[in-house]
Amino acid sequence: MKSEVNYGTLPLSLTDEGNLLLLDQRKLPYKTEFFDATTFENCCIAIKDMIVRGAPSIGCVAAFGLAMEGVRLAEKISQKSEFLHALDQACLVIQATRPTAVNLMNATNVIKDKAHSHNLDDTSKIANELMLEAKRYMQESIDVNKKLSDFGVELVPDKAGILTHCNAGSIAACGWGTALGVMRSAQLAGKNIQAFVGETRPRQQGARLTMWELAQDNIPATLICDTMTGHFMKENCIDMIVVGADRICANGDTANKIGTYNLAVLAKYHDIPFYVAAPLSTFDPELASGDLIPIEVRDGAEVTHIADLDNRVSVTIADAKTRNPAFDVTPASLIHAFITEAGILRPDFKQSISRAFGQTH
Amino acid sequence: MKSEVNYGTLPLSLTDEGNLLLLDQRKLPYKTEFFDATTFENCCIAIKDMIVRGAPSIGCVAAFGLAMEGVRLAEKISQKSEFLHALDQACLVIQATRPTAVNLMNATNVIKDKAHSHNLDDTSKIANELMLEAKRYMQESIDVNKKLSDFGVELVPDKAGILTHCNAGSIAACGWGTALGVMRSAQLAGKNIQAFVGETRPRQQGARLTMWELAQDNIPATLICDTMTGHFMKENCIDMIVVGADRICANGDTANKIGTYNLAVLAKYHDIPFYVAAPLSTFDPELASGDLIPIEVRDGAEVTHIADLDNRVSVTIADAKTRNPAFDVTPASLIHAFITEAGILRPDFKQSISRAFGQTH
Repeated sequence: MKSEVNYGTLPLSLTDEGNLLLLDQRKLPYKTEFFDATTFENCCIAIKDMIVRGAPSIGCVAAFGLAMEGVRLAEKISQKSEFLHALDQACLVIQATRPTAVNLMNATNVIKDKAHSHNLDDTSKIANELMLEAKRYMQESIDVNKKLSDFGVELVPDKAGILTHCNAGSIAACGWGTALGVMRSAQLAGKNIQAFVGETRPRQQGARLTMWELAQDNIPATLICDTMTGHFMKENCIDMIVVGADRICANGDTANKIGTYNLAVLAKYHDIPFYVAAPLSTFDPELASGDLIPIEVRDGAEVTHIADLDNRVSVTIADAKTRNPAFDVTPASLIHAFITEAGILRPDFKQSISRAFGQTH
Repeated sequence: MKSEVNYGTLPLSLTDEGNLLLLDQRKLPYKTEFFDATTFENCCIAIKDMIVRGAPSIGCVAAFGLAMEGVRLAEKISQKSEFLHALDQACLVIQATRPTAVNLMNATNVIKDKAHSHNLDDTSKIANELMLEAKRYMQESIDVNKKLSDFGVELVPDKAGILTHCNAGSIAACGWGTALGVMRSAQLAGKNIQAFVGETRPRQQGARLTMWELAQDNIPATLICDTMTGHFMKENCIDMIVVGADRICANGDTANKIGTYNLAVLAKYHDIPFYVAAPLSTFDPELASGDLIPIEVRDGAEVTHIADLDNRVSVTIADAKTRNPAFDVTPASLIHAFITEAGILRPDFKQSISRAFGQTH
């Protein structure tokens, strides 16, 4: 997007012909393949099947998906109120693809609000504005990530061992990254960091995606199993933990990839600072606390089987009973600070989050 | 071994022809296959390659391995001191196959001591005694596990959700099991338990072996990823945690499968009792504290790849740097009690462990 800085691999690109191509994150790191998400339906599939994942990236794809649906609707609906009604329906459909990440709701609400607030009557002109709004939203996402990551640098000691979980990189956060963005900014600032990457079962986003991104960024990284995190904290290898988020409540309670909560508890026991890096679009200031966050439950086959591009292996007996919550909720009490584009938010989070929204929204 | 009770699948069997057959635990649950470990060398391979694993089972196989080596040595060495010297050398070789589990050292020392304490001069008669001693050691192991498991029942609430890690079942503990033995005894005592089984990356002993054993025992079991343990504690699904051990120090510090320490810290945070079930042969009362326990580091390929019988998949980039400690050390302060054949040992562990050894050894 900008020539002077490498913002990392982007999860999506809009071609000159207007095609929306998504990097197929299910196939990384084995293969770089793109999924054509030029239709609304394909955007929904891409989000649901995790071709695109990561809360901010989901938001950007959903914004494009809804805007593209606006273009399609405008081709057959010229009456504004009818157009808006159809767009609202589409908005509900795409918002239902995944329940936990609030960026999906926020991003699509931005597009929907743009349509409703528009003073033109020409639906095709409104639709064009929606596409421009989606592009603006994506560019803003990149800028915001860079900004919050730069704020995060002050929290990183020189030669820090930094543990992260899942993938909160450029492909997850639509440019630069959030948790990985902080590492990227820290490295650019001359701090000799060492990343520790938790595998992140059941879908291995740490092993597959974060290891791949860190290798591209030349940030030294060591892959460990999720069982090893406490051991390396005890061995004094970890100076800080930074993760992304899928939804942050008004009080600071944070939903993120399953396993985040384990790390937060372990961090507290070892007196290691635990940070959440996320744009304000990941906050849900309407939601009072974490017990109100809907937690997605996914197919048990993710627990019982592991696949790469060519093969799929079973890790257990044929008819194993499983449970597979995709996220957990870390209570605010275990979080040292949020790294956002409005600066570092510290406890009392209710106040600092509310203040951040007062400033910027 | 005894007809009235099913002691679970044993990890080894001695045929009437004198062949030592090991259940190949690398191939479970996909296939029931046996490895012929009738030679000393094959016993060493079986322990090193984890065809047999679990501290007490390793001990039993090593005892047979050394006794069989005694039989082989006696065929060519009739001079007693020369025989004992060769046996001592073999003892050092098999003790070096894996460093962490102390049962390996204890069991082979039992065989070695038997040879040294013998008042016969006929080496072939001594060798026969060593085989009998190995059989006695194995039978004792089974009896001891049953005994400690029955002691453990009092710690199990009715309808308890019990989380375990790795595999401390009959195939690991050479009959009945230790952590799984407690579940088995609790179920027999009429308590309606629900097992939660952590996958146990990198080698999936929870998913592969514990799920397989619990299915055989008809104990309801749910497989979860290692990332989910804290979440289910927070959701009040877990009433107690029970694990096995590879080495327990004089002060109660305990080495067990990597990931055990995470569970102990999480248990403390959630105020859930954390128990270690192990025979006294897993204790190392000579070792003052956990920082002195040698921790085995295994091949990084265990972290980067996962295999079943037919396929092997990569979970990360081609040249991923990894670390792979096979065990971690849980400090005594996080352990509520040890479940042993000498009863339930509670803090102060230095005293209760010392007392248990005074009673029985």
